[in-house]
Amino acid sequence: MNIYTQAQIMSALCPRDAAALIAEGFIAHANGRVQLPQVQSFQFPASNGDCCVKSAWMLGDEVFSVRVSAGFYDNPAKGFSSNGGLTLIFSALTGQPVALLRDGGWLTSMRTALAGQIVARAMAPSQVRGIGVVGTGDQARMQLEHLMPVTACRRLTVYGRNRQGLEQYCEFADALGFDVVATQDAKDVATNSNLIITATPSREAIIANEWVNPGTHITAIGADSFGKQELDVRLVARADVIVVDSIEQCCQFGEISGAFKSGLIDKGSLVALGSVLSGHAIGRQDDTQITIADLTGLGVQDAQIAKCAVASLAH
Amino acid sequence: MNIYTQAQIMSALCPRDAAALIAEGFIAHANGRVQLPQVQSFQFPASNGDCCVKSAWMLGDEVFSVRVSAGFYDNPAKGFSSNGGLTLIFSALTGQPVALLRDGGWLTSMRTALAGQIVARAMAPSQVRGIGVVGTGDQARMQLEHLMPVTACRRLTVYGRNRQGLEQYCEFADALGFDVVATQDAKDVATNSNLIITATPSREAIIANEWVNPGTHITAIGADSFGKQELDVRLVARADVIVVDSIEQCCQFGEISGAFKSGLIDKGSLVALGSVLSGHAIGRQDDTQITIADLTGLGVQDAQIAKCAVASLAH
Repeated sequence: MNIYTQAQIMSALCPRDAAALIAEGFIAHANGRVQLPQVQSFQFPASNGDCCVKSAWMLGDEVFSVRVSAGFYDNPAKGFSSNGGLTLIFSALTGQPVALLRDGGWLTSMRTALAGQIVARAMAPSQVRGIGVVGTGDQARMQLEHLMPVTACRRLTVYGRNRQGLEQYCEFADALGFDVVATQDAKDVATNSNLIITATPSREAIIANEWVNPGTHITAIGADSFGKQELDVRLVARADVIVVDSIEQCCQFGEISGAFKSGLIDKGSLVALGSVLSGHAIGRQDDTQITIADLTGLGVQDAQIAKCAVASLAH
Repeated sequence: MNIYTQAQIMSALCPRDAAALIAEGFIAHANGRVQLPQVQSFQFPASNGDCCVKSAWMLGDEVFSVRVSAGFYDNPAKGFSSNGGLTLIFSALTGQPVALLRDGGWLTSMRTALAGQIVARAMAPSQVRGIGVVGTGDQARMQLEHLMPVTACRRLTVYGRNRQGLEQYCEFADALGFDVVATQDAKDVATNSNLIITATPSREAIIANEWVNPGTHITAIGADSFGKQELDVRLVARADVIVVDSIEQCCQFGEISGAFKSGLIDKGSLVALGSVLSGHAIGRQDDTQITIADLTGLGVQDAQIAKCAVASLAH
């Protein structure tokens, strides 16, 4: 078994190759060609932490993966990062462990950012006149970085609750070459942008229905567990197309689960991202539609990005 | 993160300490003090393999564990052992990985053997006049070894289908100091023994109801997944006490699941092993009862034996 450190993994991974493999994973999942056992979850209330285990095997693949991701939100005071994670890769031919990727959570951030890129490529309006980002954390940064290959638009409106976080995000985006409007009024994001990414741990809607213009695409990243929400349920109900990484998972706890559980949308109206990527389903039909993508995170993304990293590292 | 090899783990683990911790795990589980997410399972039909991920956290513990166990039954021809496995230990305070135990499956065998020991200590008749073992594989050997501290009885009847396997088992048991009767008629096991262990991958009953004498205890180890069975369902229905490691799991796919699904027994009649160990439930009441224990294997056993190994290894 080869063991790799975060530094090795970060320097070896090719984001373009990883995105291609992740897209392939979404397609395989939509086609029922992935063994994806129920996610295992732990809650550690006394230490303000949680952990999940996501495992996946793409049928026919020579390897399968077991990913352990942890979030311990009091860690910074203890000198550790809040997020942690590692992936084990096993042979699907013999069961032997092949590799341990000690990425410390980076691979989860990266596969999430690349899923955002994949969705934007498939669903963004033909002319992006402004990018909107809700949130100023690490994932909000990585989303922006990985949107850059998808669109030439460099107009950005970023919303954050915290003034200091907002200033730091502006510096970051400015260095990437964006014209940045920073705001503490989320309505500005909707007004200025037709490609919006929400990446916060919010538990209530930040984007109101009435703010959003026709022709907008929104990718909601934040709602990755029960109780999280970033969009008005009426906005979800109003969307012309809703694309999801996993129909089952998104109805359970994704961004759209609120609208689903209230009966505002039904399961049959949801489109699997993999089906859009394979051409079996239609994503955006024209530049007047409001489209929403709900990404909750799948084990097959973890498997695919890990495979990509191992392929580079083994050479 | 400390990484330990199978040889290190085998030389460090104290079976008595491990048994005590595993018993504590069964009690915590019966008391609802274990987070035990749904087991993840993979099937790899093309390579005749399967894999499961069992994770567990005993509430309040400083660590939690993720265990990956694999069985690839064509491996011997490829130069690998059929069974494989490793355990990751994480801090429940920070989520950081603490240890990786690369035991190659040995810890699963060991915690299963020790569960057999724990059950025998709790449930065997007061006078063991003969031990019966059904099966001649590695687990059948380990069960016998770990029964030795429980009873002074050294009369053994062993049943196997394969003559060569039976001969080798006899040599093994003889070297341990047993008077051995080897048989290819499973009835002899029931006739000669009042403490019986079944440890085969059988998919049909080996022990018939009418062979079993009053006062016998049987621990059924083999049925650890759907479709496996070693005991006549009428024997299960006839038992005075049925003890299980997990009521839910045993009703799903354990030895007793056939009788449960046919309506011959009901869930309310099952006794959790942990409840017997803690004194909250009664196991065997007298030496005329037939008792059956069904062990399907719990993540908390993996967590407890791994903790025990790490505690020895870290010194």
